Amino acid sequence: MAGLHVRSVLVTGANRGIGLGFVQHFLRMPNPPQWIFAGCRDPKGQRELQNLASKHPNIIIIPLEVSDPASIKAAAAKVGERLGGSGLNLLINNAGIAKPCSLDNETPENMIQVYTTNTVGPMLMGQAFLPLLKKAAQGSPGSGLSCSKAAIINMSSYAGSIEDMYVWEFGQVVSYRCSKAALNMLSKCQSLAYKEHGILCITFHPGWVQTDMGAPGQIPWRMLKVLSSISEKEAGAFLDWEGKVVPW
Amino acid sequence: MAGLHVRSVLVTGANRGIGLGFVQHFLRMPNPPQWIFAGCRDPKGQRELQNLASKHPNIIIIPLEVSDPASIKAAAAKVGERLGGSGLNLLINNAGIAKPCSLDNETPENMIQVYTTNTVGPMLMGQAFLPLLKKAAQGSPGSGLSCSKAAIINMSSYAGSIEDMYVWEFGQVVSYRCSKAALNMLSKCQSLAYKEHGILCITFHPGWVQTDMGAPGQIPWRMLKVLSSISEKEAGAFLDWEGKVVPW
Ligand SMILES: NC(=O)c1ccc[n+]([C@@H]2O[C@H](COP(=O)([O-])OP(=O)(O)OC[C@H]3O[C@@H](n4cnc5c(N)ncnc54)[C@H](OP(=O)(O)O)[C@@H]3O)[C@@H](O)[C@H]2O)c1
Ligand SMILES: NC(=O)c1ccc[n+]([C@@H]2O[C@H](COP(=O)([O-])OP(=O)(O)OC[C@H]3O[C@@H](n4cnc5c(N)ncnc54)[C@H](OP(=O)(O)O)[C@@H]3O)[C@@H](O)[C@H]2O)c1
Repeated sequence: MAGLHVRSVLVTGANRGIGLGFVQHFLRMPNPPQWIFAGCRDPKGQRELQNLASKHPNIIIIPLEVSDPASIKAAAAKVGERLGGSGLNLLINNAGIAKPCSLDNETPENMIQVYTTNTVGPMLMGQAFLPLLKKAAQGSPGSGLSCSKAAIINMSSYAGSIEDMYVWEFGQVVSYRCSKAALNMLSKCQSLAYKEHGILCITFHPGWVQTDMGAPGQIPWRMLKVLSSISEKEAGAFLDWEGKVVPW
Repeated sequence: MAGLHVRSVLVTGANRGIGLGFVQHFLRMPNPPQWIFAGCRDPKGQRELQNLASKHPNIIIIPLEVSDPASIKAAAAKVGERLGGSGLNLLINNAGIAKPCSLDNETPENMIQVYTTNTVGPMLMGQAFLPLLKKAAQGSPGSGLSCSKAAIINMSSYAGSIEDMYVWEFGQVVSYRCSKAALNMLSKCQSLAYKEHGILCITFHPGWVQTDMGAPGQIPWRMLKVLSSISEKEAGAFLDWEGKVVPW
């Protein structure tokens, strides 16, 4: 992780699971970020995150519902205010939902709700935080791309690999798979559109964790190791927690 | 096309463009289908399709709005009634929309509308017509899969290839690309889930046509040639109008 020097980071869905794990691992870095924005749709009930924030003034809890454009806009304004004139280095679109369902039982409501959160949310986040990401890129020396400079990391899943159809027998979760395949496409679009602004965009399979068991474990740590080493060569790629390319 | 013997086919969005071209080409086959169900969301205004249907009693115009679950259910009931006890061999999910837009201008409304039509629609169509497709498969001899037996063809696009990002410079159309990548995922899901019922599912890039210029040209003809030759080997594949595999 020696290569990762992030002055500011925003993680969505930071109140539990992998998102909370990220916040904890950022704190443990040898050079922790000056600002860790922890997006969370219901800040009140989040004891673990609140505890952490009360001990670490560099954690700023930001109310953020990624399926609500107004909430996203308000969050971007708050983050911009805190950052003063400086930009945002790293946006981790981690918030996501899944609805356990077989193809036979899949509903339009499920399809739209999961797509709105997992795909449309990250698109709106990219749009709303683009000015701050651009600012970070402009304020960083060098012409290459990196996560220390300015980057969007979208949390996808191996279940979104059309080639692989990972754990199909275990769960069809069609609405989830479609949303993550679409998120992979969105990431490629963001990568092509935002490259000229100096922003690195990738999509990520974090590995499998039993987050609801309270054991997000080594996932964020391994991911941060990968993030510390990637550059423009990896722009637009679908990577796993070992840095290996996942097939589309 | 010698290998294609379809007793019944349903084409969505059959009032213009490629969909109408399909209806015309089915009529010209040496052994035209006994039933050509032409799905169309507003049957009244469609002079060309109405003319065709008045001359060819095997064309049945079916009111069908693929973004409306109730309309899909009603259509499935009507088609089932017409078919009497027999099944539906071929479902061509052709209806689709695109919203010209750059990533910067993309809206949640666009994203949801395009996804609802291009991705959720084909899912609901598959669910609603599954009993009729199953019936066709059960009524056909042999254990292999084919379009003459029972098949779902989803009309995707090369623009939905995450690997290729075809004509990105020409049009970013993020909502369209995401919907077609998700449609490709859906097709793979349908292929895996419906294989046991004897139903072949693939996703298709039809080639580019200036449909709005009234020139759907050779597209449906070339596609029907491909459809006549595919079998279980191609189940779940993304094919173009020459039968070549398109990268995900
Ligand atoms: N866990 C795995 O094994 C695994 C594997 C592959 C990919 N992933 C991906 O990794 C990401 C994190 O997964 P996880 O296991 O940590 O999930 P998790 O434990 O279920 O946590 C999901 C987080 O997302 C938040 N969230 C959901 N919908 C939201 C919305 N509309 N607005 C704002 N926040 C929202 C949740 O907030 P609330 O507490 O308010 O619900 C929660 O903080 C997801 O994108 C997931 O698809 C996970
Ligand atoms: N044309 C190309 O070069 C090209 C290339 C790649 C892929 N494709 C795909 O091929 C398919 C057909 O394309 P096309 O060029 O023939 O398009 P088109 O000329 O624009 O025709 C689209 C058809 O879909 C129907 N439709 C749209 N939304 C619908 C809905 N909600 N319910 C029912 N019907 C609906 C339209 O009906 P209305 O008349 O009522 O609007 C029309 O019949 C699409 O899926 C498209 O994405 C086309």
